[in-house]
Amino acid sequence: MLKVVKIGGNIVDNPDKLERFLADLASLDGDKILVHGGGKVATAISKALGIETQMIDGRRVTDQKTLEVVTMVYAGLVNKTIVARLRTHGADAIGLCGADGGMILSRRRSPVPVDYGFVGDPQRVDTVLISDLLGRGMTVVAAPITFDPDEGTLLNTNADTIASSIAVAMAQAGVETELVYCFEKRGVLRDVDDQQSVIPHIDPLLYAELKASGAIFEGMLPKLDNAFRAIDNGVSSVVICSAEMIAHPGYGGTTITK
Amino acid sequence: MLKVVKIGGNIVDNPDKLERFLADLASLDGDKILVHGGGKVATAISKALGIETQMIDGRRVTDQKTLEVVTMVYAGLVNKTIVARLRTHGADAIGLCGADGGMILSRRRSPVPVDYGFVGDPQRVDTVLISDLLGRGMTVVAAPITFDPDEGTLLNTNADTIASSIAVAMAQAGVETELVYCFEKRGVLRDVDDQQSVIPHIDPLLYAELKASGAIFEGMLPKLDNAFRAIDNGVSSVVICSAEMIAHPGYGGTTITK
Repeated sequence: MLKVVKIGGNIVDNPDKLERFLADLASLDGDKILVHGGGKVATAISKALGIETQMIDGRRVTDQKTLEVVTMVYAGLVNKTIVARLRTHGADAIGLCGADGGMILSRRRSPVPVDYGFVGDPQRVDTVLISDLLGRGMTVVAAPITFDPDEGTLLNTNADTIASSIAVAMAQAGVETELVYCFEKRGVLRDVDDQQSVIPHIDPLLYAELKASGAIFEGMLPKLDNAFRAIDNGVSSVVICSAEMIAHPGYGGTTITK
Repeated sequence: MLKVVKIGGNIVDNPDKLERFLADLASLDGDKILVHGGGKVATAISKALGIETQMIDGRRVTDQKTLEVVTMVYAGLVNKTIVARLRTHGADAIGLCGADGGMILSRRRSPVPVDYGFVGDPQRVDTVLISDLLGRGMTVVAAPITFDPDEGTLLNTNADTIASSIAVAMAQAGVETELVYCFEKRGVLRDVDDQQSVIPHIDPLLYAELKASGAIFEGMLPKLDNAFRAIDNGVSSVVICSAEMIAHPGYGGTTITK
């Protein structure tokens, strides 16, 4: 089973947690794709460069200068640091952004109703390229920068969406695929302040209830939308769990079911 | 014939020259590997981040903070910008640093007599990986960051040396290979202030004479040393020329001969 694993910015930004996670990931058998964020590092570098970070609804508005920063940070610093650490732990890692080999082509998001700037959504994943690299025994490390062939530009792209897009494309190419969202919490929580309140399973009915009751932390909604998109489009298993659980069978956390 | 082409920091730092060069490069038939620098951009970003750039004999001293900057700039900003522009011009470009897939493994340079910090020299080039990517019709774009498997760290690596190391490794793997150093001058000049003074051919005897007479611009010496290393180790042709000449037969410029 191919594992598509996504780690968020709070893990990437914590060297100790990142190191432990990468050691665990490298120890796993089988084909693996790691998709990483890096938003906290990008915000820090932007600040150091005197570039103001503007967020709308938790999403980064990406002007030309910010696109340069996220390209540097995601596809350069974070991606290559992860590749180097995975290699040290014995994984033959290769770091790519969506532009590389046309791995993930995207389309710039409409500036209406909200203009997020150089931000796009995946349109096509090159599953042949990915399968070839996995077939060489490589661990693919994907940075959340994609390429819009119509506009000829790099685009900042949500890493949760990239992970689900890769997982769906691989599943639809006939590869049995599991999608694992790893972050700093234990799973989807009924009470965001209570790590013991993990919801073990969420199906569409429960999701609708949780949304209606306002019980779910706002930042979790896009992750859950991506999770349901994946499970609805052929991905065998979707789990949201703690990065600390990646080497544990079943991962603990929250399993998404149809 | 495989072309291994290197462009220097003065081209990378000039958007118009870079765009023209990449359009020309994309128009060329046959297998291509592009190795790029980016030192001027790295110096500018370092300055903006308040990190002092220290050079010794024209080489960047690379402490931990500077390693982070060159990793961001070379493997991130510059590499992915080049990949995006090449794709726009129709080349199926894939950007890698030496750590990716273990493409270029290096060894950290001894701190004696000069401690350059996180700087290394290539020890092994994965010609199978490169040949596979070229065989897919891809243009490989290589950033001058390598990986030291013994120390488990990324290393800043001279781009001229990376270009000659790749060219030599491919030649020794049986691929007919040409190495082209592109920069802002027309070739090796007898008089650095006179663009008309291009020396058309340099053999080891003439090189020794030019070095002894002090006629050669100091920054040119490592490039020429790399050029002779390549021609002495199986590379079919080595040329030093203007980036503007990459699409012209013969390139003008200076040809290195045994």
